Amino acid sequence: MSKRPFGLAVAQLGPIQPNDTRKQAVARLLEMMKEAASRGAKMVVFPELALTTFFPRYWMTEKEAIDRYFEKSMPGPETQALFDTAKKLSIGFYLGYAEVSTEGKCFNTSILVNQQAEIVGRYRKIHLPGHSDNKSHAPFQHLEKKYFEVGNEGFNVWETMDSRIGMLLCNDRRWGEAWRVLALQNAEIVAVGYNTPSQNIHWNEPPHLRMFHHILSLQAAAYQNCVWVAAAGKAGKEDGFHLFAGSAIVAPTGEIVAQAQGEDDEVIFCQADLALGDAFKQHIFNFAAHRRPEHYTLITERVGPGAALGKPPLL
Amino acid sequence: MSKRPFGLAVAQLGPIQPNDTRKQAVARLLEMMKEAASRGAKMVVFPELALTTFFPRYWMTEKEAIDRYFEKSMPGPETQALFDTAKKLSIGFYLGYAEVSTEGKCFNTSILVNQQAEIVGRYRKIHLPGHSDNKSHAPFQHLEKKYFEVGNEGFNVWETMDSRIGMLLCNDRRWGEAWRVLALQNAEIVAVGYNTPSQNIHWNEPPHLRMFHHILSLQAAAYQNCVWVAAAGKAGKEDGFHLFAGSAIVAPTGEIVAQAQGEDDEVIFCQADLALGDAFKQHIFNFAAHRRPEHYTLITERVGPGAALGKPPLL
Repeated sequence: MSKRPFGLAVAQLGPIQPNDTRKQAVARLLEMMKEAASRGAKMVVFPELALTTFFPRYWMTEKEAIDRYFEKSMPGPETQALFDTAKKLSIGFYLGYAEVSTEGKCFNTSILVNQQAEIVGRYRKIHLPGHSDNKSHAPFQHLEKKYFEVGNEGFNVWETMDSRIGMLLCNDRRWGEAWRVLALQNAEIVAVGYNTPSQNIHWNEPPHLRMFHHILSLQAAAYQNCVWVAAAGKAGKEDGFHLFAGSAIVAPTGEIVAQAQGEDDEVIFCQADLALGDAFKQHIFNFAAHRRPEHYTLITERVGPGAALGKPPLL
Repeated sequence: MSKRPFGLAVAQLGPIQPNDTRKQAVARLLEMMKEAASRGAKMVVFPELALTTFFPRYWMTEKEAIDRYFEKSMPGPETQALFDTAKKLSIGFYLGYAEVSTEGKCFNTSILVNQQAEIVGRYRKIHLPGHSDNKSHAPFQHLEKKYFEVGNEGFNVWETMDSRIGMLLCNDRRWGEAWRVLALQNAEIVAVGYNTPSQNIHWNEPPHLRMFHHILSLQAAAYQNCVWVAAAGKAGKEDGFHLFAGSAIVAPTGEIVAQAQGEDDEVIFCQADLALGDAFKQHIFNFAAHRRPEHYTLITERVGPGAALGKPPLL
C-alpha cells in the first residue's frame, strides 16, 4: 500500500492567566504555528478555548464579566493575525474558542481552517461536561452547562487538505458515539482540543486516573475508528488550578506516536501516514461487513440507562 | 458509598487439540470451577467455544465433520456435570459453545447460568469476524462467517446473582456499540469469552499489537461504560496455531485488577466492588445528563461509512 504522508502538528498551550490578553495568547499561537510549519506541518491543532483562561471554572453572573471571554467574530481583530500567517505559511489549523453566534447563542466552538486561511468547518461542542449550578463548596466550578448551549450542528467531517478531517472538543473524546459518527463519514484525522482539570470536583478520584482515561480514550478511539487523532491540551496552573497536559498524536494502530513532554507551550509533530488505517478498514473494522445496526437501536432510543431487556426469556 | 462485593473469577483455558474429547475439556472446566468456588467466586467466566478446539480455522465441507463441533442440547450428556457441580458449589458460570438451535440454525453462543444451575440468559454472537470463503493461501482460516449465523437475539442484560450481567463474545469487545447497548440496560458486569489468533491472516500486523488492541478495548469499554469486565480466553497452540492469552478482569476505572500469567488453564479472581462504577455513573458518565442521541443517528442509519456530511456549509 502506498503511503500518504500528512505533516500533522499539535500545539499544546501552557497556562493562560485570567488577566492575559488575547494579543498575548495569539502571539504564543503564532510562534507555535511558525514552528509547526517549519517542521513540515500541513495542519496544526490548537487547544479548546485557546484564547483565554479556562473561564468555566468561575461562577460569574454579570453579563460583562462573561462576555469578555467570547468571540463575536472569527477572525476578529486579535485573531486576524493567525489567518494571515497561516495563509503566508500555507498551513491549516484547528482552533478552539468561545463563540457568540449571530443569533446571540453561546457555544464552545472549534473551527477548521485550510491552507488558504479559509474557514472550511465549524464544530460546536455537543458533550458539555460539568454543571450549571453554583457548587459553592467545590474548590472550583465546571460550568460548561451554564455558559454554553449544546452544539446544534452535529458531528461533521470535511474534505480538505487532501484528507477528511473531523473535529471534537474535550469531553467528546470519552464518548464512543462521537467518534463513530465521524468514522461513518470516513474521517481520516480527528482533531481534539481540550482543557481538563487534574482534580475531579465531584469525588475523590486519584489524579493519575484522569490522565490514564484521557490517553485510553484517545487510543481506543483511534484504533476502533481507524483514524489519526491529534489532541491538543491547555496545561499547567491557571490561576492556581491545574490542567493536565498529555497532548498527543495517536495512530490508527492505537499507538502514541508523539506526546508532549511538559506542561508549557510545546509543538509535537509527526509525518502521519494516512494510509496506515487502510488495512484495519479493510478487515477487522470493515464496517460494511461486520456492523449490525439493527442491534444498536438502544443507542438512539435511550438517553440514560433503562430496564434490562433480559431476553430471550428463561430457556 | 457502601461496597457491594462480588466474587468474580475468570477461567482461562490452555489449548484444546482437535482430537481432545468433550469429556476432557469439561474435566478441565470442572477443575477450574472448583478452584474458583474455593476462592469465593459467585460466578466464573469460561472462554468462547470452550468445549472444542477453535474449529473455524479449518475449511470443512462435510456435514459430519462440522456437526461434531456443535452442541445439540445444553446441558448435554457431556456438559451436565458442569451444571451439577455448579449447583452443588452454588457458583454461577458463563460458557461459550457452538450451538445448533432447535430450528437447525448454527450460532456462536454463550449462556449465563445462575447459582442454582439454571440457564438464565443466552447470547448469540453478533459481530462475527473473518470470512466465509476458502482462503487457501492463508496459513489458516477464520471461517466464523461460514459456520455461524449472525446472532438474532440482540445484546441483553440479565438481573441475576444480585447484579445485572451482560454477555459478549470475542470480536464484540472491539465494537463500542455492543458495550453501549449493555450499559444502556444498566449492566454492572460484562462477561466476554474469546479465542484470538496471534497472527493476522489478512495483513502483516505485528503480533504485539493484537494483544495491545485486546487489552485496550477491554479497558476503554470498562471505563466508558462503568462496568466490570471479565474476559476469558482460550490460549496457546492448538494444532500448531497460536491463540493469545491475556485473560483479564478490568474494573470500571479501566484498571486491570487481575490478569492471567501464562497460556494454560488458569483461574484469576478478584473481589469486585460493584459500587465502584457508581461515582462515574453519577458524574462524567451520567448518560441522562450528557448523552445526545439526536446527534448519533448515523450509528443506526449507516452500516458502512458514507459521504461526509460536511455541514455546516462554508462560513
